[in-house]
Amino acid sequence: MKLAQLALLARAELVGSGEIEISAITDLAHAHAGALVMVSDPRDLSAAEASPAAALLVAGTVTPSAKPFLRSVNLRAAFARVLSAFAPEERGPGEIHPSAVVAPDASIGPDVLLGPFVVVASGAAIGPRTTVHAGTTIGSRVRIGADCLLHPRVTIYADCVLGDRVTIHSGTVIGSDGFGYATEEGTHLKVPHLGRVVIEDDVEIGANAAVDRATLGETRIGRGTKIDNLVQVAHNVLIGEGVLVVSQVGISGSVTIGNGVVLAGQAGVVDHRRIGAGARVLARAGVTRDVPDGATVSGFPARDHREEMRAMASVQRLPDLAERVAAIEAQLAGRSRRQGARKRRG
Amino acid sequence: MKLAQLALLARAELVGSGEIEISAITDLAHAHAGALVMVSDPRDLSAAEASPAAALLVAGTVTPSAKPFLRSVNLRAAFARVLSAFAPEERGPGEIHPSAVVAPDASIGPDVLLGPFVVVASGAAIGPRTTVHAGTTIGSRVRIGADCLLHPRVTIYADCVLGDRVTIHSGTVIGSDGFGYATEEGTHLKVPHLGRVVIEDDVEIGANAAVDRATLGETRIGRGTKIDNLVQVAHNVLIGEGVLVVSQVGISGSVTIGNGVVLAGQAGVVDHRRIGAGARVLARAGVTRDVPDGATVSGFPARDHREEMRAMASVQRLPDLAERVAAIEAQLAGRSRRQGARKRRG
Amino acid sequence: MKLAQLALLARAELVGSGEIEISAITDLAHAHAGALVMVSDPRDLSAAEASPAAALLVAGTVTPSAKPFLRSVNLRAAFARVLSAFAPEERGPGEIHPSAVVAPDASIGPDVLLGPFVVVASGAAIGPRTTVHAGTTIGSRVRIGADCLLHPRVTIYADCVLGDRVTIHSGTVIGSDGFGYATEEGTHLKVPHLGRVVIEDDVEIGANAAVDRATLGETRIGRGTKIDNLVQVAHNVLIGEGVLVVSQVGISGSVTIGNGVVLAGQAGVVDHRRIGAGARVLARAGVTRDVPDGATVSGFPARDHREEMRAMASVQRLPDLAERVAAIEAQLAGRSRRQGARKRRG
Repeated sequence: MKLAQLALLARAELVGSGEIEISAITDLAHAHAGALVMVSDPRDLSAAEASPAAALLVAGTVTPSAKPFLRSVNLRAAFARVLSAFAPEERGPGEIHPSAVVAPDASIGPDVLLGPFVVVASGAAIGPRTTVHAGTTIGSRVRIGADCLLHPRVTIYADCVLGDRVTIHSGTVIGSDGFGYATEEGTHLKVPHLGRVVIEDDVEIGANAAVDRATLGETRIGRGTKIDNLVQVAHNVLIGEGVLVVSQVGISGSVTIGNGVVLAGQAGVVDHRRIGAGARVLARAGVTRDVPDGATVSGFPARDHREEMRAMASVQRLPDLAERVAAIEAQLAGRSRRQGARKRRG
Repeated sequence: MKLAQLALLARAELVGSGEIEISAITDLAHAHAGALVMVSDPRDLSAAEASPAAALLVAGTVTPSAKPFLRSVNLRAAFARVLSAFAPEERGPGEIHPSAVVAPDASIGPDVLLGPFVVVASGAAIGPRTTVHAGTTIGSRVRIGADCLLHPRVTIYADCVLGDRVTIHSGTVIGSDGFGYATEEGTHLKVPHLGRVVIEDDVEIGANAAVDRATLGETRIGRGTKIDNLVQVAHNVLIGEGVLVVSQVGISGSVTIGNGVVLAGQAGVVDHRRIGAGARVLARAGVTRDVPDGATVSGFPARDHREEMRAMASVQRLPDLAERVAAIEAQLAGRSRRQGARKRRG
Repeated sequence: MKLAQLALLARAELVGSGEIEISAITDLAHAHAGALVMVSDPRDLSAAEASPAAALLVAGTVTPSAKPFLRSVNLRAAFARVLSAFAPEERGPGEIHPSAVVAPDASIGPDVLLGPFVVVASGAAIGPRTTVHAGTTIGSRVRIGADCLLHPRVTIYADCVLGDRVTIHSGTVIGSDGFGYATEEGTHLKVPHLGRVVIEDDVEIGANAAVDRATLGETRIGRGTKIDNLVQVAHNVLIGEGVLVVSQVGISGSVTIGNGVVLAGQAGVVDHRRIGAGARVLARAGVTRDVPDGATVSGFPARDHREEMRAMASVQRLPDLAERVAAIEAQLAGRSRRQGARKRRG
């Protein structure tokens, strides 16, 4: 691919010859003739210029002198776009593997790929150009939009809905029953889960995650939200648009999460809490109270991140504080002894 | 379904006409003509009475005036029971899908459903009316009781045992090897796991959980215990009856958990610990010592919840305490200077 | 099996008759005639001698008097070796189940077992004597070495590489895309993941774990490393040799982990951190800074374990410290009052 084509694709400024051929995107360590190398740290610029790379991809403030380059104010977005030119096509041509089991009343759109051992149950509908890889099971009455990509061994339980351009990685389960029981004389009576899961357009969910169906109504994941591996989304959770949920986060039942929220790795949210739009929940935070719009919280129980940092710093100095208190006590005891001695002498 | 029939099913008191037809259970927001609406918060009563709902389901202390209603002292149990009348049947008629691979010496009870791509290995036995959905794999010599429900893509390793009415959600793995190695000159030698997993009657396990087999003997999950998604149960763990284990909990090897214990979300238990009957381990607690019967513990290391709350409150006031100590030091320093000055003057 | 044969296998000292037949390895509670019982706690020795066991397996410092015994300085290694004599064979004879879907250009070595519903995609290669159980999916161009064991329902995405003698438990996903997005005006643009996962020889990975492929280059798991259930290994992580990663650990992107490290249960590591060779990260620790070689760290943020223990002990004594500060304040206030009174009297 010519560098000029990549510049267009990347929406980046091209400086130098656009005619050179780029055969791969590599990091600096693996630079070779024909490679386009991203310089994410400006301190690497001279090494990148000395490398055999054919061209560089740099941020807006950087100006290479020895090689042609692409420049973008959003370096990472430009990187994502040039990479997409080299990504292998994961969607095959429309084709239904002879081993797939498709209910006679299921509706399969044009150019859909169903891999080996895929199951599509009664009443399900799959939109055009969607790819469903080996061993994935699609329950009764499930509706899946266009241009989705379901990796191997995904499970979609009955009645769930996926929008367009949804990607789900291997092992993830959508629509399992929520963890709801009524306890009666020590016995846990199952609360049946009659609701569903709705996943809006452009959502991506990682591997081995779990999204439970609602008791009644919906568990919903908003448009453009991205969820990492091994995340738990409980029943009746409502996640807004453009949310990022990092690996191993746990979101309890009936939590509401606003647009643009970021939940960092291994965080947790207690049930029925509301996390305001644009809030950031830092790694391992445990949210036990509502979080206001735009707040940054950390710790357990999670609170304003600056407060938590202050409290944590105090804890680090606590052994020192304890010594200071002991010194004060010794000083006061010494004084009392001296005062006592004076009184006895007096 | 008539309201009177639902009253019988819910074991609830019926007030008003039992002849009205109920077509759905909904929450207040989705109430419509024909709906039975549960009023879980008494403050919602007037809104519920003003809604188009046909009838209400209320707790023992609440008395609607405008609509027929069902009343129960255990509202949630009544709710669970009425919902079950509207839950879709997940167990089909007995039928073995032609693609299922069943060993000739496996024993399949009457009215068993085996979905597409199910594998039943040599010597396995499946009890009457059990449903095994698509892609589930049942290992050699596994024994499964009556009326079980295995969702798609469950794995049961060889020699494990499931009682009656066990439900396992998609992606869960029962009987994988425990994480046991003997380290010899830096090399980790695998400890073979010859034990098994025994799951007693009426257990439900969520999606993408893992229950390891014992090294020798058994990992056991007691009757009526419920386990949520993404939970880890290590080798040789013994879980009692009626236990609740919430999502993302990790239970290390050889832990013993008494009857009726609750382990809340993201909690963890160090190996070989014993958690007494009726104890509650709160969210994210990390249990490093035995927990007495009936105790409530939180924090890491987990301890009595009231003590932990006191310590956490102290930490919150720590910056204030540090300021007070500094003030004392300043006061004492000032006094010393004054005393020094007096002495020098004296 | 004769005791003398087990002694050879266990590399243990044999005392007493090597001719007796051992039919099983059991723990003390299940000892029976014919059983070899491991005495891991010397306090159990007399009970073990009084049991019906045929022989004992003891550590180097212990000398039974009533039964023949095997003795080893590495008791657990000897235990692992004798157990292996009784472990059922998990690798069948080479055989490709007729339901397996194998691409015509895939290369399948001699004596490979492919179970029912296995998929081997185009260009993949599987080495001799490897066993692939039911429902496992092997992507395009994947290379798998000799003598591997893939349990049911594993997914290996395209282009990943497994060495020899690698074991992967059910539900685990190797090679899913890393969680990488470029955010542009509130929209998360996917960063395509063109790298791969390389798993070296003698690695074992538990159930329902996830190992993401690199953005560019490799995510790599070093020789002899063992990973437990439900662990997250993000994109571009480099794990050294002989590392132990316990259940529910989360390792963020581009983390480097040295040889012989131990990450205990539910620990987490922030992205781009380096954990030095031989370091120990204790249970639930959250690593936010690089960890030096050989260090032992705990807490969140993780720091030297002894420091963390001191700080935790200070926190436990904090309510007491607060009372002491209040007492000092009262004493000083009283003195000031008395001094004020004296001055007023003076």
